[in-house]
Amino acid sequence: MSVQSQRVPGAAFSIDLELQIPNLPGFLGRVTTAIGAVGGNIASLDIAEHTSDTIVRRIAVFAADTDHVTEIVAAVEAIDGVSVRSISDRVMDLHRGGKIEVRSRIPLRHRDDLSMAYTPGVARVCEAIAKDKNAAHDFTIKKNTVAVVSDGTAILGLGNLGPEAAMPVMEGKALLFKHFADIDAFPLCVDVRSTDELVRVVEQVAPAFGGINLEDIAAPACFEVEERLRASLDIPVFHDDQHGTAVVTLAALRNACRVLGRSFEDLRVVIAGTGAAGMAIGKILVAAGIGDVIGVDRTGIIHRSRTDLTGPKMWFVESANKDNASGSLAESVVGADVFVGVSGPNIIGRDEVATMAAKPIVFAMANPTPEVMPEAVRDIVGVMATGRSDYPNQINNVLAFPGIFRGALDVGATTITEGMKIAAADAIASSVADADISTDCVVPSVFDRSVVKKVAEMVGAAAI
Amino acid sequence: MSVQSQRVPGAAFSIDLELQIPNLPGFLGRVTTAIGAVGGNIASLDIAEHTSDTIVRRIAVFAADTDHVTEIVAAVEAIDGVSVRSISDRVMDLHRGGKIEVRSRIPLRHRDDLSMAYTPGVARVCEAIAKDKNAAHDFTIKKNTVAVVSDGTAILGLGNLGPEAAMPVMEGKALLFKHFADIDAFPLCVDVRSTDELVRVVEQVAPAFGGINLEDIAAPACFEVEERLRASLDIPVFHDDQHGTAVVTLAALRNACRVLGRSFEDLRVVIAGTGAAGMAIGKILVAAGIGDVIGVDRTGIIHRSRTDLTGPKMWFVESANKDNASGSLAESVVGADVFVGVSGPNIIGRDEVATMAAKPIVFAMANPTPEVMPEAVRDIVGVMATGRSDYPNQINNVLAFPGIFRGALDVGATTITEGMKIAAADAIASSVADADISTDCVVPSVFDRSVVKKVAEMVGAAAI
Repeated sequence: MSVQSQRVPGAAFSIDLELQIPNLPGFLGRVTTAIGAVGGNIASLDIAEHTSDTIVRRIAVFAADTDHVTEIVAAVEAIDGVSVRSISDRVMDLHRGGKIEVRSRIPLRHRDDLSMAYTPGVARVCEAIAKDKNAAHDFTIKKNTVAVVSDGTAILGLGNLGPEAAMPVMEGKALLFKHFADIDAFPLCVDVRSTDELVRVVEQVAPAFGGINLEDIAAPACFEVEERLRASLDIPVFHDDQHGTAVVTLAALRNACRVLGRSFEDLRVVIAGTGAAGMAIGKILVAAGIGDVIGVDRTGIIHRSRTDLTGPKMWFVESANKDNASGSLAESVVGADVFVGVSGPNIIGRDEVATMAAKPIVFAMANPTPEVMPEAVRDIVGVMATGRSDYPNQINNVLAFPGIFRGALDVGATTITEGMKIAAADAIASSVADADISTDCVVPSVFDRSVVKKVAEMVGAAAI
Repeated sequence: MSVQSQRVPGAAFSIDLELQIPNLPGFLGRVTTAIGAVGGNIASLDIAEHTSDTIVRRIAVFAADTDHVTEIVAAVEAIDGVSVRSISDRVMDLHRGGKIEVRSRIPLRHRDDLSMAYTPGVARVCEAIAKDKNAAHDFTIKKNTVAVVSDGTAILGLGNLGPEAAMPVMEGKALLFKHFADIDAFPLCVDVRSTDELVRVVEQVAPAFGGINLEDIAAPACFEVEERLRASLDIPVFHDDQHGTAVVTLAALRNACRVLGRSFEDLRVVIAGTGAAGMAIGKILVAAGIGDVIGVDRTGIIHRSRTDLTGPKMWFVESANKDNASGSLAESVVGADVFVGVSGPNIIGRDEVATMAAKPIVFAMANPTPEVMPEAVRDIVGVMATGRSDYPNQINNVLAFPGIFRGALDVGATTITEGMKIAAADAIASSVADADISTDCVVPSVFDRSVVKKVAEMVGAAAI
């Protein structure tokens, strides 16, 4: 099996199998053996019903992908005497009916409660806000509520699937906001036809919200949308695909320097991929004082003589690539200290990584398949990170956006500045203690609850 | 004290008083007596702290309005030895931080949960919806989620206070949706400059929602907005100020006929006020087969020769007022069986009601002060209803909209038809049992949980 096609079974492709099995010793062993033989991973197992003749068992199995599910089912069906009663997709089941709900924060027991929460009592609250719009932060959900907005044009790695199909992701994001930062987030997937319409609809719904998290909006529209909304709204606007990724990348790079004893100011970084994430990573690294940054797109290194460059990419010419290097991706990494990939699967190999500076830092963040697999370069890299949870050093936005919004909302920030983002990165980096830091641990765990608290504090302090 | 200025203390104007009182017998009696003497109503009372010399007591007092609060505080301060440590507004306190929150419906315990609810697992759910948009009803919040949309142009009786000031009402509405119908509703108060913009923003946010509840939008824009959205969207759109009020009015009128032994088909009804509610009441009564309806606005009866009529009001000429009656409000009620007021305070008196048919039905629904106070006409009316909770027969939308949306969502209705509204009214009317019905009980209690269930069932059946 090649490195690229290695299959990792996980919850994301898990199924519940209901199997009817003869009630005789040895059959369960045959089933579990058959599942294991084709690489399925049994997560849990129980009995649904049984008679003296047969047992119906429910078995949750982790698979690697949909083909793998088919293989696992076939392997079980091939056992004489075993029949598959039902196969259900655990992920689809989990999403049934949606993942969030709207709940009351106050009691509604009797007529008096109604007359305070609704008419006639509520009229006085409305009048207080009409008199002073800022009172909305005190007497409505605004202060703790963020809109998660997408037009569905760049859903995960799947492309433009439309607003309805974006909802499961945005609901998931709302879950993360609540779970990690106790922020009430609501998904708004909007049906718009242009950048102008997207900007306008967010401006129109803004009165209800204390912040706007933009998500899965295709480049280059996402840059203009964010810029215009930052200018027109008096609440924080944050495109997570850009800045969430950039903040965690900066944090990981700081810690990679810390563990390898490198100087951040001397690093030469190649960024492969100049979409939303690549642009923002370039900008935050330069703002944080890194040595040099070189952007590479499908055509090669972005340099002054290129005639095909669109607006946002010009930044890589104007504010980066100090020596105006040119050439291919392979040429760009020769002698570079850091490779940051936010592009596609397997775009570089061991041979290219071997041409980088000694013990290079490689962040291969394409999902699900990185720009280069960790197995291929493990022995020649200094620090390796990916976007995946099944390898060390996962660059995961969830380390950044909950704390950034928590901090901004807590201090009533009207915007999120570059300084606040850098503060967030420093907070994440410093969450890894000296005792814990290692080449396999340059980012904290997403389940370390102290990270959000630290990020919120440092972002809040940087806002004031 | 005149009937009009009679003050009814209630929770809507309640305060928490913190009083420092000498720790001696008799002082609490003096405090409660002083509050009672100026008409304050003590709701609760406890001790915050005490020493051998003094006691700090917290007393919740219902008042009638803000002037009354001032009087109550002054009365307490006038007692020798008593000092007011703090006065806080219980309604404002209740609204602090907003009244709703967004919560998770699924567990998020560890990495496997994350990978099912978010990436990479969620990708498959997105793809399923991209393939078939209808799957959004199964795998997102859409199926059970309603947007409560307002532009803030007609907030309660307060007028155009803007979208921020509308939020407390729309959050309250979301509470009611959850409490009465287990529907997840989210308040969207939008900042728009025209009817076109309002229509467009609702169309744009619609993908996330299974229904649209329009609220507190000024007439006549509200008619056009609803009509256009009903045409363009494939989910139910319902302007509650119109149809919620109309449905409950029809229900109350059916039961008034039931209790008085009148024939619905023979009733002549005068509707004072031709805004959102008045128009919808006229239409549903005609659709339900009432004898005749006459609309009256500020100028008088709406009839064929009037040259000042705008678009929507033409309905009262074209589909009502069979005999083309003309004249003033006072003239319109002479001999009428029913007066329905959705206008302003005290526009008719006992003298006018006395000119109506014997034992007339009077629904005086202006809030907070009805078109005629019940005390003024109690002995000459057959059935009297108001919009207030402190008189019998409260015409309250909360009897209608939760069940209507519950029914529509349950059967996947794409619109709410006139037939569904009439079914809702019949469900509400039939919720008052023969054993319970009386002139003081023509509508069920808003706390009767069986009403929503019955409305949902009958609306669902009517949709199919």
